[in-house]
Amino acid sequence: MTQEVLADALRQRYREVDSATPAHWNPVLQVLHEHRSVRTYLDTPVSDETLHLLISAAQSAATSSNLQVWSVIAVRDPARKARLAELAGGQKHILQAPVLLVWTADFARLRQLAADHDTPLEGADYLESSYVGFIDAALAAQNAVVAAESVGLGTVYIGALRNHPELVAAELNLPQQVFAVFGLVVGHPDPAESARIKPRLPQAAVLHHETYKLTEQRKHVAVYEQRIAQFYAEERLAHSWTERVLNRLTSAASLNGRHRLREALANHGFRLV
Amino acid sequence: MTQEVLADALRQRYREVDSATPAHWNPVLQVLHEHRSVRTYLDTPVSDETLHLLISAAQSAATSSNLQVWSVIAVRDPARKARLAELAGGQKHILQAPVLLVWTADFARLRQLAADHDTPLEGADYLESSYVGFIDAALAAQNAVVAAESVGLGTVYIGALRNHPELVAAELNLPQQVFAVFGLVVGHPDPAESARIKPRLPQAAVLHHETYKLTEQRKHVAVYEQRIAQFYAEERLAHSWTERVLNRLTSAASLNGRHRLREALANHGFRLV
Repeated sequence: MTQEVLADALRQRYREVDSATPAHWNPVLQVLHEHRSVRTYLDTPVSDETLHLLISAAQSAATSSNLQVWSVIAVRDPARKARLAELAGGQKHILQAPVLLVWTADFARLRQLAADHDTPLEGADYLESSYVGFIDAALAAQNAVVAAESVGLGTVYIGALRNHPELVAAELNLPQQVFAVFGLVVGHPDPAESARIKPRLPQAAVLHHETYKLTEQRKHVAVYEQRIAQFYAEERLAHSWTERVLNRLTSAASLNGRHRLREALANHGFRLV
Repeated sequence: MTQEVLADALRQRYREVDSATPAHWNPVLQVLHEHRSVRTYLDTPVSDETLHLLISAAQSAATSSNLQVWSVIAVRDPARKARLAELAGGQKHILQAPVLLVWTADFARLRQLAADHDTPLEGADYLESSYVGFIDAALAAQNAVVAAESVGLGTVYIGALRNHPELVAAELNLPQQVFAVFGLVVGHPDPAESARIKPRLPQAAVLHHETYKLTEQRKHVAVYEQRIAQFYAEERLAHSWTERVLNRLTSAASLNGRHRLREALANHGFRLV
């Protein structure tokens, strides 16, 4: 653990020629900066004891007004994982890794509590509350990711669990008011296939001071296009970031079923007023 | 740094009588588990160099399909912070701390890119895409929180920035398709007023195995109600968690303006089809 290892992670992340020496270094910054999504796993199990630590880390994250409107389902049954992998477009790492954590926005717990107290819970019907549930789940999951990486595990988020929300809900027995936000694969990375740190937009593109600036984004995106092309070339891919992101969002069809998320949420009791 | 320090954080988090020894311990798990929201700050500045490290940690988080549909605005100008504090219900810690980071879901960068390439970006009009922006912003912000705490800084999320979205957008010059998801106060905690670890629901309430179980939630909530009452009593507060969360969501009015989030997003160019 040295400042130089962190500096190296920063160089890989930004691919800037003259990057400054980091102002601090510690094992936490190291783990955060070395993140990469892992898509090849060994079949080594993850123990319940380790899982409990990932979830206590998740519960230690902030939660809006201490509402704690999220839950997580740990799926280890190979047959269930296989069915969920199929629903997520056939992602093989869901099968390979020992655990799939499905993070949900959960208003069922509070609905039940409100019903038991004969109290209305109309605030939960608003679009705002769905965002609170999604944000709470995301903050919790990200803490679990950092905890997992700190003990040598790898992870990858599975947004494609939103492709077929009703079928995912049926598989997990999700009641009304519980919605699967995303999956998170957790397992031991296959050392034979080590994922690399993916470059991100120059920091100047995402960090604004005092007020937001739009037109300056053009030059930052142009620089990024060059830098990530290098990365893709090293991976023997002829990708363009611009093409890829524009294709991803070009039409309803490019959302792989998620264009009907509003309907799916309504089917799960989220009125989204 | 010892296993015992982590075990102590876990005892404070769950207040269970017979808590198990943690399966792992390292400085990362320690920082994650010792999180508390800080609401009293010194006026000591946070340097640009430190801020850059928080943002590089944020950019190191996963982002859906590498879209990177978020931006953050660092507000240090005391007058602007004062106006934003007012819009967030007069939270004094926004004034006290040297930096307010405003995290946004940002589709303006990609809209501009799509326009420059004369390409449609219809996928961005869907409700799904707004969740992607909110989730991306949350994953990034949570990494910044962990990085900040690792270097001794404190933080607190400001969801109340959604109380008056149009006024917040005007203050930060946010263009169409950029929406302030939440604020994050960052600064040096006042050592005279040390925040304590807040207890969370028993892990059995939020962690489910294979399928979701609803009725069992009742007993976990009842246990929690007792445990957090202890915490409140130590803080000389006569609160009940159940009362507080049910009040928070009882009606449109209890959302402090956020019941009109749908309208506010529409005003900012999010169609949410």
